[in-house]
Amino acid sequence: MAKYTGLVTDLYQLTMTNALFKMGRHERRVVFDRFYRQNPFGGGYTVVAGLAHLADFVERFRYTDEDIAYLRSLGIFEEEFLDYLAHFHFTGDIYAMPEGTVAFPGEVLLRFHGTTAEAMLLETGLSMIMNHESLVATKARRIRTVAGTDALMEFGLRRAQGHSAGLWGARSAMIGGFNGTSNVEAGQRFGIPVLGTMAHSWIMSFDSELDAFRAYADIYKKGLILLADTYHVLEFGVPHAIEVFKELRAAGRLPRAYGIRIDSGDLAYLSKEASRMFREAGFPDAIISGSNDLDEYTIASLKQQGCTVSSWGIGTKFITADGSPAMGGVFKMCAKEREDGTFEPVMKISNDVAKMTNPGIKTVRRFYRKDSGKMITDLVCLAEEPMADGGTFTLTTESAKWRKKQLAAGTYTVEDLLKPVVQNGAAVKLPELPDIIRYAEQQMDTLWPEYTRLMNPDIMEINLSDTLQHVKNDIIEKELGRRAPKA
Amino acid sequence: MAKYTGLVTDLYQLTMTNALFKMGRHERRVVFDRFYRQNPFGGGYTVVAGLAHLADFVERFRYTDEDIAYLRSLGIFEEEFLDYLAHFHFTGDIYAMPEGTVAFPGEVLLRFHGTTAEAMLLETGLSMIMNHESLVATKARRIRTVAGTDALMEFGLRRAQGHSAGLWGARSAMIGGFNGTSNVEAGQRFGIPVLGTMAHSWIMSFDSELDAFRAYADIYKKGLILLADTYHVLEFGVPHAIEVFKELRAAGRLPRAYGIRIDSGDLAYLSKEASRMFREAGFPDAIISGSNDLDEYTIASLKQQGCTVSSWGIGTKFITADGSPAMGGVFKMCAKEREDGTFEPVMKISNDVAKMTNPGIKTVRRFYRKDSGKMITDLVCLAEEPMADGGTFTLTTESAKWRKKQLAAGTYTVEDLLKPVVQNGAAVKLPELPDIIRYAEQQMDTLWPEYTRLMNPDIMEINLSDTLQHVKNDIIEKELGRRAPKA
Repeated sequence: MAKYTGLVTDLYQLTMTNALFKMGRHERRVVFDRFYRQNPFGGGYTVVAGLAHLADFVERFRYTDEDIAYLRSLGIFEEEFLDYLAHFHFTGDIYAMPEGTVAFPGEVLLRFHGTTAEAMLLETGLSMIMNHESLVATKARRIRTVAGTDALMEFGLRRAQGHSAGLWGARSAMIGGFNGTSNVEAGQRFGIPVLGTMAHSWIMSFDSELDAFRAYADIYKKGLILLADTYHVLEFGVPHAIEVFKELRAAGRLPRAYGIRIDSGDLAYLSKEASRMFREAGFPDAIISGSNDLDEYTIASLKQQGCTVSSWGIGTKFITADGSPAMGGVFKMCAKEREDGTFEPVMKISNDVAKMTNPGIKTVRRFYRKDSGKMITDLVCLAEEPMADGGTFTLTTESAKWRKKQLAAGTYTVEDLLKPVVQNGAAVKLPELPDIIRYAEQQMDTLWPEYTRLMNPDIMEINLSDTLQHVKNDIIEKELGRRAPKA
Repeated sequence: MAKYTGLVTDLYQLTMTNALFKMGRHERRVVFDRFYRQNPFGGGYTVVAGLAHLADFVERFRYTDEDIAYLRSLGIFEEEFLDYLAHFHFTGDIYAMPEGTVAFPGEVLLRFHGTTAEAMLLETGLSMIMNHESLVATKARRIRTVAGTDALMEFGLRRAQGHSAGLWGARSAMIGGFNGTSNVEAGQRFGIPVLGTMAHSWIMSFDSELDAFRAYADIYKKGLILLADTYHVLEFGVPHAIEVFKELRAAGRLPRAYGIRIDSGDLAYLSKEASRMFREAGFPDAIISGSNDLDEYTIASLKQQGCTVSSWGIGTKFITADGSPAMGGVFKMCAKEREDGTFEPVMKISNDVAKMTNPGIKTVRRFYRKDSGKMITDLVCLAEEPMADGGTFTLTTESAKWRKKQLAAGTYTVEDLLKPVVQNGAAVKLPELPDIIRYAEQQMDTLWPEYTRLMNPDIMEINLSDTLQHVKNDIIEKELGRRAPKA
């Protein structure tokens, strides 16, 4: 993994920390929540991703001599503070929903325990990582929900917003249900299956398309997907492919997986015609692979028109999270240490009600129906509140407090979603990617389809515990009093 | 700079190269063009960026022992080919429009001369770099065109699509006309001014907003921008700021640059009210800085409403190139070596007319009016064609061949836009960032404002030389004949 410098942060994090350091307040212990306010893509959920990367980032976050020299050159930091930075490393704890968890707006996705300095210096980088990877995993999952059991390949590197977007995007694609990537580095780093055969440049480096197909088939004996649209799919590409498949069959070496890829034109029409031509030529199991600016909407529409593509190459619109290219996740203080070492709940009260936060050291508990295994709802509560014990349990919807949901005894199970990610500054052993992928599938299975449709999905109602609601109301009243100008 | 592995590529680049290697055709010399078909954001131009990064990428592109071991584990490559990769490094030449150049659809932005293997292995990475950075530089320039002479700060790291998007996006922001960034690593790496004061977490770590303001002012003597919206901008934030400014003035240490930042609520209303309050309190030169999901459209609209913000913090929508998050730049073969060492022009002929390419080793020549310095048009022609010599010159619009433009003798200057970037595999000395920034400004000054407006801009008509047009027509006719199925 890349060695990150402590300079992967916003300058104000350093100026604030320097100021606190000077006042001797940088070691005050605080708790921060990461959460988001709106699902991306107008969807009904977000798939959590980025924790492996984030744990690594946090664990390795250091200031090198070169970094310190640069910061000194800015002329705004105290020498004592620079010395503090030279020895800085994270010593706190991070809890989070595991990668692959389905999450909803307003929930705590991650809880950070550390010093004020640690929270400030690490905020920008860890937010960036989790925002990006959760966003892209969510996009992937949306595409998976319309692709059914088709193969989904990630081809986006050349259009990615930089090298890390391509690399970590490929990993997030797998969490979102893709089958492989063209990104070779992602294959090496994460053990993801890598796939791909030929580009137009291959075809064009031969005198004819047929020669190009034959030459490729001579060399690669397994999995033969011929790119059929360099000149004209139905006039040349498919007939040439049929000719090569016939030659291979005659020679007894037609691979089990064979077919064509179409990268331009109308995929519905071309794929149907190509399938018909292959069927008539005696190749009914030829695979039609499709690519060209696809996303969940195009795939849904093409399938509705009877498109016979069963293997999709998804690039640009996936890797850039087209339609919603940023995840508005935020990182807000929810508690700070008192003189006596206990923690005082705090919250942000803004002009803008939507920007208010939930105070206190919280967790998220998910309730499932015992019979179907489907998710019932989530409860955001203080971490110290007792778990529901399987008996009768009452939930109150935050946005509509008159709305109570009664869970009958013995009908539900409940799980605490926040698990340790970093403890005392060291990353804990996190699940391996194949386990994350399985867990992510299971998570999706707990949702009724109403929550997963592309547009206007049903909105999962999240609940705040009564205890948390009381803490919140108390703070609002107290704060509004003491914040009046002293002047 | 990061050491890139040769695995930053798509798998098919490696399978194609392996196949060519086996056929002994991987060393055939080829020429590729990079170009794009449509301006991003529905705009009238694209700002070229990414060459410094790209030159570094190309120069350092290598396969380590670990990379080779991984590729061997895939079981699809020949040992001789893996040995070839272990010694692979780029030996060719790259020419491109310098960073900061204003470019138009269909033009050659970059011309690549190398072996077929080199073109294949490097395509994905160099495309990714140039697509990303040109896209973001263009977004920045659009924001600059509406911000006038206001200060523009890049604050996007936490919402960037990964670490490289944040880092290189900050550099591209400068090429697009921004004044600085909050990204400290970008400051160190590229010498960009870094800026930023405080976040809501600063305010919240104190018992009152006023205490937080005072504490900050005590420590930072230069440039005091107080974040005024943690609680309520007009009720608390501005009155508290005024109180602190009065104290500083009384103590004779009010900095030259001072003011507030507003990060929520209606910036037009809040900024006007805040300015009035500052004026009435005797602080008419207090700076109002604004942030919160801004882009070129919001800024234009706020300014129209008399918003008094003169310093803008631009994050999410800039760093993710909101509205057009990918640049559809492509890399296509335009010539290949014949047996005799000369080059044969080639092109892609597709079902889709828009996907046809221009054949031959080409360049782009820009014509300017001698009197105003404004750009007249660009000519795409073969590199070997003689330059216009200042005499009468006729241009033919590609899309409308009956439309001729006559340039009178002595009224124009002309410049070849493609300059060397890499020669014999080694990066040439490229312009420093401050020079690129100046050049980028000058380039924008050569455009009439009609070409730079946000929506429905005038479209710059690009010309193809008659010679190039003839080469193209000849190939189309010849190709359509020889591509008929041989079966």
